[in-house]
Amino acid sequence: MSEHSPGHRVRIGLLGCGTVGQAFIAMLHEHGPTIARASGHELEIGRVLVRSIETPRAGVRPEQLTTNPDDVFGDSELDLIVEVMGGIDPTADYLRRALASGIPVVSANKQLLSRQAPELLALAQDADTQVRFEASVCGAIPVIKVLRESLLAAEISAVTGIVNGTTNYILTEMSRTGMSYEDALATAQALGYAEADPSEDVGGADAAAKMAILASIAFHTNVRFDDVPYEGIDRLSAEDIELAGDLGYTIKLLGVAKLTDGGVSVRVHPALIPHEHRLAAVSGPDNAVLLESVAVRQIMLVGPGAGGTETASAVLADVLSILGTPNRGFLQNALTDAGRPLRDPDLTSSAFYVRLRVSDRPGVLAQIASVFAEAEISIGSVIQQGEGDAARLVLVTHETQERRMNTAISAIRDVTDVRGEPVVVRVLTKENA
Amino acid sequence: MSEHSPGHRVRIGLLGCGTVGQAFIAMLHEHGPTIARASGHELEIGRVLVRSIETPRAGVRPEQLTTNPDDVFGDSELDLIVEVMGGIDPTADYLRRALASGIPVVSANKQLLSRQAPELLALAQDADTQVRFEASVCGAIPVIKVLRESLLAAEISAVTGIVNGTTNYILTEMSRTGMSYEDALATAQALGYAEADPSEDVGGADAAAKMAILASIAFHTNVRFDDVPYEGIDRLSAEDIELAGDLGYTIKLLGVAKLTDGGVSVRVHPALIPHEHRLAAVSGPDNAVLLESVAVRQIMLVGPGAGGTETASAVLADVLSILGTPNRGFLQNALTDAGRPLRDPDLTSSAFYVRLRVSDRPGVLAQIASVFAEAEISIGSVIQQGEGDAARLVLVTHETQERRMNTAISAIRDVTDVRGEPVVVRVLTKENA
Repeated sequence: MSEHSPGHRVRIGLLGCGTVGQAFIAMLHEHGPTIARASGHELEIGRVLVRSIETPRAGVRPEQLTTNPDDVFGDSELDLIVEVMGGIDPTADYLRRALASGIPVVSANKQLLSRQAPELLALAQDADTQVRFEASVCGAIPVIKVLRESLLAAEISAVTGIVNGTTNYILTEMSRTGMSYEDALATAQALGYAEADPSEDVGGADAAAKMAILASIAFHTNVRFDDVPYEGIDRLSAEDIELAGDLGYTIKLLGVAKLTDGGVSVRVHPALIPHEHRLAAVSGPDNAVLLESVAVRQIMLVGPGAGGTETASAVLADVLSILGTPNRGFLQNALTDAGRPLRDPDLTSSAFYVRLRVSDRPGVLAQIASVFAEAEISIGSVIQQGEGDAARLVLVTHETQERRMNTAISAIRDVTDVRGEPVVVRVLTKENA
Repeated sequence: MSEHSPGHRVRIGLLGCGTVGQAFIAMLHEHGPTIARASGHELEIGRVLVRSIETPRAGVRPEQLTTNPDDVFGDSELDLIVEVMGGIDPTADYLRRALASGIPVVSANKQLLSRQAPELLALAQDADTQVRFEASVCGAIPVIKVLRESLLAAEISAVTGIVNGTTNYILTEMSRTGMSYEDALATAQALGYAEADPSEDVGGADAAAKMAILASIAFHTNVRFDDVPYEGIDRLSAEDIELAGDLGYTIKLLGVAKLTDGGVSVRVHPALIPHEHRLAAVSGPDNAVLLESVAVRQIMLVGPGAGGTETASAVLADVLSILGTPNRGFLQNALTDAGRPLRDPDLTSSAFYVRLRVSDRPGVLAQIASVFAEAEISIGSVIQQGEGDAARLVLVTHETQERRMNTAISAIRDVTDVRGEPVVVRVLTKENA
């Protein structure tokens, strides 16, 4: 791998051959001449690791397929590994095996990278090779390259993103049509924007994995999936979307990573964001990432967050980036500020939207208000509306610490006149936006 | 320059030391430890070419300043040239001198690059070195890196951009407040968003230079400043902004580069774009670039288009990119598809907004309509409003070739009842958006 003179053939071992893998193979066939002319390299697929060699794959000869990883790694002309098989075990072993023997790796695997990026980056560094994983986050949007290369010295202070297309599509449809969460999810499934089991997406875990990767790269530190508290959108109703709209806000599932006082805070949760905020306009299945630093103010990248071709395009870009850079590659592999502490989420602050159903009786508002007062939470606005013998009470607080809100919500659950579970959503105010 | 082991000192010769140059020096001082930790390189400023050595510069010792370029190039430890002096002559000579002797160059000079990029890229290629110029387009937004590296094989088909912050600020203020062009320009000047002589910005030349560079990189071809027809925003009135708003459009100064039938079309002009188009939300002095291809659909990059620190950040990113890649650098230097023909602008198509002042007499509308009919232009909508003895007539056409519209406008100028000069603005319809 140390020599790549123009015209050099580059043999790629492919781990996995599903939607992304097949799109990648098709892209090499379709754009081969462009790639060769622009990069000086002829890319070719070597062995392809699959679960069953019975299913034929377009663009792959049957004898290239194998179920044995030793066939992929035993290829004496192997230059590079592309991993699009997903999963953690045994995939992690394969990537370590490649890197340990100096073979560079491109991976689209957010589950794995969000758990083991530090180890894989360090292993690559030790073996003087590289691991790239643009496709693991936000499909074709080159946010990792921009963070690692263009903004390396910009000292990024915040990364705020809409990093899950499924939930953004659902929330956009709920907002556009007033339909229920369940109907919007069914529409998303019918259109292929949501999987049959949508829990990874709607529950926030998918976004949390991506935010762990983005925060690690942006802040040059180790943030792992398990470090990222997350909430999903499944508790939101059409009523919340409409109320938020009336108050001047759009609801989005946000990933928020911040560097404050030398510590790192990363989380995923739905949030009310002002209509005029630049992330409010990101609609449908699109993803967007807002990068902030003193040096560059705000840079936003927007684009399709998923899709076979889009993801394959990011994989191909990583392959070309590896070929265009020597040995251990562009600048740092290791996460150099690994010592940055994670901040206690309970100590971070937000404003909050709280929706309650209460008995429509005198004194209920006073009771609720006193709970907030005792928790030292200041209320910005209140809307109360009768609904038969009950009333809907919507409060928007000023900024307060999470732990205070947790205390208040616990107390509110105990108020006799409160019916059902309070709906609590963070608010990105203009001040903290 | 072939060896850059970690800890290697990199001596930078600086051509020019104005706002961007001083911001660059300050950034090296402020972020030196971050840069060294992340990149393994210690960057230092060598000699600094200035017009007068009498003015002291922060962070530079008096003996580093010189008015003689030979002092910069004669530095035996010179590793890299950063050019932030601007202008074409003698700047081009300096850059050629550096590249010819194998010294890599980072330039922020859009005037020069939009005229001589092909020659400079070829010269760099021949000398096995590189020239990078991210800072010449859209400040801190890393659009050139994304095009050259992340989207190298994505076969970009269109680049549409708001690439001039001055005009975007002026148009945003006109739209937001209803103020006149003159008042918005004065506000922009007071806030430092427009220069005392704003003609390069408001006349469209600045945007045309940037679009020439972007089109060259996106389509791997040669597009020069002189190839880009451009119009500015100085003919637009508050009335046009308001009328466009009523019709569902925002007016922006757009750069539009398209690859069609193997040919390239690049131009800059104001355009009505639908409120729901993603570029419509880009407001104030921000820049945005929308990149389109089959593989990645649409990717948009948004951020500050100018500013000393923002531009210096892009220069620094280019310096680090050069240090992170060997010799001739990442993939292609030369523009490999140099043979792509420029399409005749008269043959491109648009819908058009046309505003006329006409005498308020029977038959005038019929006369105007017949002019359009003769030119085979189909009218989508008409608004006619009396204004004393005159009437305002606003027509929005369906898509038609430029040459037909030119014919129609010539004929309309000859209609006796038309008063003053027609205002003609292209429309980005939902179909051609």
